[in-house]
Amino acid sequence: MKALVYHGPGEKSLDERPLPKLVTATDAIVRVTRTTICGTDLHILRGDVPTCQPGRVLGHEGVGVIQEVGAAVTAFVPGDRVLISCISSCGKCDACRRGMYSHCSTGGWILGNKIDGTQAEFVRIPHADTSLYRLPAGVDEEALVMLSDILPTGFECGVLNGRVQPGSTVAIVGAGPIGLAALLTAQFYSPAQIIMVDRDRHRLDVARTFGASACIDIARTDPVAEALRLTDGAGVDCAVEAVGGPSTFELCEDIVAAGGTIANVGVHGVKADLHLEALWDRNITITTRLVDTVSTPMLLKTVRAGRLQPEQLITHRFALERVLDAYDTFAHAADTGALKVIIEVAQIA
Amino acid sequence: MKALVYHGPGEKSLDERPLPKLVTATDAIVRVTRTTICGTDLHILRGDVPTCQPGRVLGHEGVGVIQEVGAAVTAFVPGDRVLISCISSCGKCDACRRGMYSHCSTGGWILGNKIDGTQAEFVRIPHADTSLYRLPAGVDEEALVMLSDILPTGFECGVLNGRVQPGSTVAIVGAGPIGLAALLTAQFYSPAQIIMVDRDRHRLDVARTFGASACIDIARTDPVAEALRLTDGAGVDCAVEAVGGPSTFELCEDIVAAGGTIANVGVHGVKADLHLEALWDRNITITTRLVDTVSTPMLLKTVRAGRLQPEQLITHRFALERVLDAYDTFAHAADTGALKVIIEVAQIA
Amino acid sequence: MKALVYHGPGEKSLDERPLPKLVTATDAIVRVTRTTICGTDLHILRGDVPTCQPGRVLGHEGVGVIQEVGAAVTAFVPGDRVLISCISSCGKCDACRRGMYSHCSTGGWILGNKIDGTQAEFVRIPHADTSLYRLPAGVDEEALVMLSDILPTGFECGVLNGRVQPGSTVAIVGAGPIGLAALLTAQFYSPAQIIMVDRDRHRLDVARTFGASACIDIARTDPVAEALRLTDGAGVDCAVEAVGGPSTFELCEDIVAAGGTIANVGVHGVKADLHLEALWDRNITITTRLVDTVSTPMLLKTVRAGRLQPEQLITHRFALERVLDAYDTFAHAADTGALKVIIEVAQIA
Amino acid sequence: MKALVYHGPGEKSLDERPLPKLVTATDAIVRVTRTTICGTDLHILRGDVPTCQPGRVLGHEGVGVIQEVGAAVTAFVPGDRVLISCISSCGKCDACRRGMYSHCSTGGWILGNKIDGTQAEFVRIPHADTSLYRLPAGVDEEALVMLSDILPTGFECGVLNGRVQPGSTVAIVGAGPIGLAALLTAQFYSPAQIIMVDRDRHRLDVARTFGASACIDIARTDPVAEALRLTDGAGVDCAVEAVGGPSTFELCEDIVAAGGTIANVGVHGVKADLHLEALWDRNITITTRLVDTVSTPMLLKTVRAGRLQPEQLITHRFALERVLDAYDTFAHAADTGALKVIIEVAQIA
Repeated sequence: MKALVYHGPGEKSLDERPLPKLVTATDAIVRVTRTTICGTDLHILRGDVPTCQPGRVLGHEGVGVIQEVGAAVTAFVPGDRVLISCISSCGKCDACRRGMYSHCSTGGWILGNKIDGTQAEFVRIPHADTSLYRLPAGVDEEALVMLSDILPTGFECGVLNGRVQPGSTVAIVGAGPIGLAALLTAQFYSPAQIIMVDRDRHRLDVARTFGASACIDIARTDPVAEALRLTDGAGVDCAVEAVGGPSTFELCEDIVAAGGTIANVGVHGVKADLHLEALWDRNITITTRLVDTVSTPMLLKTVRAGRLQPEQLITHRFALERVLDAYDTFAHAADTGALKVIIEVAQIA
Repeated sequence: MKALVYHGPGEKSLDERPLPKLVTATDAIVRVTRTTICGTDLHILRGDVPTCQPGRVLGHEGVGVIQEVGAAVTAFVPGDRVLISCISSCGKCDACRRGMYSHCSTGGWILGNKIDGTQAEFVRIPHADTSLYRLPAGVDEEALVMLSDILPTGFECGVLNGRVQPGSTVAIVGAGPIGLAALLTAQFYSPAQIIMVDRDRHRLDVARTFGASACIDIARTDPVAEALRLTDGAGVDCAVEAVGGPSTFELCEDIVAAGGTIANVGVHGVKADLHLEALWDRNITITTRLVDTVSTPMLLKTVRAGRLQPEQLITHRFALERVLDAYDTFAHAADTGALKVIIEVAQIA
Repeated sequence: MKALVYHGPGEKSLDERPLPKLVTATDAIVRVTRTTICGTDLHILRGDVPTCQPGRVLGHEGVGVIQEVGAAVTAFVPGDRVLISCISSCGKCDACRRGMYSHCSTGGWILGNKIDGTQAEFVRIPHADTSLYRLPAGVDEEALVMLSDILPTGFECGVLNGRVQPGSTVAIVGAGPIGLAALLTAQFYSPAQIIMVDRDRHRLDVARTFGASACIDIARTDPVAEALRLTDGAGVDCAVEAVGGPSTFELCEDIVAAGGTIANVGVHGVKADLHLEALWDRNITITTRLVDTVSTPMLLKTVRAGRLQPEQLITHRFALERVLDAYDTFAHAADTGALKVIIEVAQIA
Repeated sequence: MKALVYHGPGEKSLDERPLPKLVTATDAIVRVTRTTICGTDLHILRGDVPTCQPGRVLGHEGVGVIQEVGAAVTAFVPGDRVLISCISSCGKCDACRRGMYSHCSTGGWILGNKIDGTQAEFVRIPHADTSLYRLPAGVDEEALVMLSDILPTGFECGVLNGRVQPGSTVAIVGAGPIGLAALLTAQFYSPAQIIMVDRDRHRLDVARTFGASACIDIARTDPVAEALRLTDGAGVDCAVEAVGGPSTFELCEDIVAAGGTIANVGVHGVKADLHLEALWDRNITITTRLVDTVSTPMLLKTVRAGRLQPEQLITHRFALERVLDAYDTFAHAADTGALKVIIEVAQIA
């Protein structure tokens, strides 16, 4: 089969690889129909993810069709259309039983990282019963690729952890795909304001069409002063960090209201300064989280009910043969305007 | 009347001062029977609290008897025995209505800071109806001074924010009075382990008698290795920072389990390093809080029910005339073994 | 001044009454600009509310302008435009401090019940600082009358108690004003389905325009079978009882899913059968509540943000002189199609 | 093997039965060392549980040793000492993923009900990985039988659902084994009062030694008047129904405080009267629940930490050969003083 393979920092190619086989009784083999590229794939290609070794098929998002199941799989049969979760979850260990699938003792984020991933014609999914989700009838199958990772990440790490409530004020620092996913799902809770902060004017324009109540272009405006102005000096009830750097995290420290929450979504490579001398008596909460995908069933219900349009995040489409172009387009988002790029691997029935 | 007055960094004296008078209709004048000294008073004396100006009567803790009430006070009459909360709360503003009394728009921590405090024979208490608490019958009045600040602080900032639960594991970094207050109140929730961390062997000995399940003397033992050993490598579900410095906060980062909480109680003067590169995917929560004293009614019930013995924290007693000795004893706790020192201002009826 | 006065079961008239005066230092006198009629007013007129004695001015909803304030009122000055809460709250007692204003030891629902109410040119409001809310700039003042009672009631008793969540399924039994208020505010949380149940086709038609995803006319359709059909046999996650009778409550018992909630909003005069033989192992929750109006600040924010249009509930307007016609119109809603009728008492500045 | 078999209403015997065999890949066969008898077993013998057919081996509690595991079992190997949960949970279905194991689509309470149970030398456990728990080292193995059902039932249905908190007031109606289990576990949260209500003086005496702060003998004292007296007229914050009848449930309605909770634990055969005419405005919560056993890991930690002594509930011991005597002793608890009777099936290694 064809697969996008990581060959070490800066190196990738579309290779011919043998078909994956069932390894344990709880595995399934999925024939991929659609996949996509994540910012984390770019991290791997920069050599920043030591758990991912050369030779690995990349990708941890996708939808497809069950090809084959292990003897202990009870929830699926060949032919079932499924959503692949970016997090593999055994459903048995202490972490899974507490709903913290990201820390599953034999799972977590392993797809396209510690085991071969979804940017391929077929993929082996461990713990299939608890890591795949049946697609609801009548929904746009392609768009559900957005539910593999980006929408649950924005929702769980940003919106749920940020305790967004009706009437509350939210700032989302970073209007990339993940920040926009937080923007879309924050609206589930009817906050009074959602302020998007970025330096990319195109992304801020998109954010406005996605429902942002205000946008701050940090290339032109002091974001602290502006966020305070927009909130009558109080600061925001919830600040979502959706970039992954010290300066954006510290900006969140500056704009969070007393009693508010900083919900970190970004992937960080270095420490940040935590200004406890200013924050110790401000009654704030800071959260970090690797997405657990516990909210996937809830998100599928909101899509089915028409409350969420995941296809809004899709800007480009490429056939698997052109996956290298897809990477280029995605990696140069400032020029291409790319949010999420769909890789068409096989026809949707 | 006699009062302990701050005269600028390093300077204090027991002075004669005029009696306080009612200023607004919601004030009460309380005749103080017992007060105490807080670590924050020492901060003021080091010049670290700019809101507190020379000439201020110090102290924000105490019990006493209502002497006089303003026209709008409805909950108390002269002669009522009361507990003075360290936090003044109007009960009306947005913050108070959310239970965040510490950020009351006309209150918060003002006693012995922005207005004259309790280390005196009489004190004016603003927002009396919502900042004083009637003493339950049949309890040790003196011991209730511990409910003005230290016990609600340990409980709200450490235990409630730290989400201590039956069977959970807790580490409290700092075995001073505030850490010990967290230790006492953490036991309300029956955690499986409470590990105390300090470098003062006497305080660790005290902690053991107060119910600590393990003690780590950081002068002799690597606290990270030991905390991990005690928790089978997982780290603690809840790490309480009860010192107020970068190294102790960063220690909490090192020992908190995935999915756990760092509850900051300490007063910080400088920033700490937040190692987001290690924590971003650990699903942790960090909280800060200035005590709100919303839990005071609950704590009074636990004292009345015999579930909490606040007198355990009292090590020394001084008459008001000897308040300077009391400060000496409290300030040199490493030598004196002082936890909380009671200042006897007047006889308890 | 003119006021609508209750004279015993079945008897009411528009009378001339003396102007109300300040009684305590925390009172305010409000000049009413708009008020409305509540289903509870009809209960009083049927003689069902023994706490309301003949001679009482009715009404517990309204907006107006501060005319005069007592000496201890600090939040308002004459001329301020205010919303009157149906619940008077002292902000000091145990119940108020727990956010259960409905059980305030000196307040609760007293307006137009135990003391004179708002269907008059002026009204005395006790505990003014904590029972009135400043109107935000730029909103439709008249429409805010809907925030005195009906919207917080639908929201707190139905939606918050019912734990409506994104993707969840909700049934609201009763499409009268209160059920419709629950329908409007349930949408804050983006549930997947909101099923309205009533026997009045007009009200169901209104419900559809207000966002109901399905309507069950119980005059024509078996509501249990239909609710189960709409939820794939599971029943609803949240059943809101918005009528106040045994049969509608028992219908909720029949349609609630395992793990779900029955949130009672209706005012009941007799007992209902609780089928514990069927429900004991169904992991359900049943809640009752007299509105606390703790959510009023949140609701004002949602109105200001354009997330809620309270004017949708207004169907008729009458001058105060025609208040008896207003009662007729409201009491015969099946014929008149009335939801909420506005009484215009004075011009809005 | 020997097994206690149900032969229809009123009929049971200790029979010779074939050894159970693995049926699916997720099964385990457990060699039982200790089991016990539950009130539900007596319900079955009265013919009240239609899902349990003649020929069934009874029993849903026990500890033992893994004899054999199916191909998909990963958490256990033969020789492991395990606790058997009364609830079988697949860990995969929607209910299990929400933590509502009692409503597992292929599990729930099936042991000794729909499939053969634990009052036998061997038992087949479906969904073994998620329905068995490894015994911690160094604990009293026999006593852990109390964690199969009775302790999680009292804790989850009574204490957790009842939201017992430090300083709160609790009444437990029914001082049988399940009420006593609630009493033991309520103390995890340090309530101010736990009032036990029963008509059996011996059980009330036991309750006192287990930590009850007050006991009401309803044969001699009006329980409503006494509960109100003990709570200064307020009623209790949490009323636990641990009997299963209309009169005891309605007693809970009479003694619950405004804002309080009625947590139903009892198994009911008929409806109760819900006095909504009195309760609609009291802001109360009523919960029902079949135990989910989600708290089993937490309870095991509290046992290991010495915070819970499950052996307190054991009053009698019988060898399996004398299981009929054990049933007699348990069924005539008023005379024998039995709480829980241990059946010794095999030697504990």
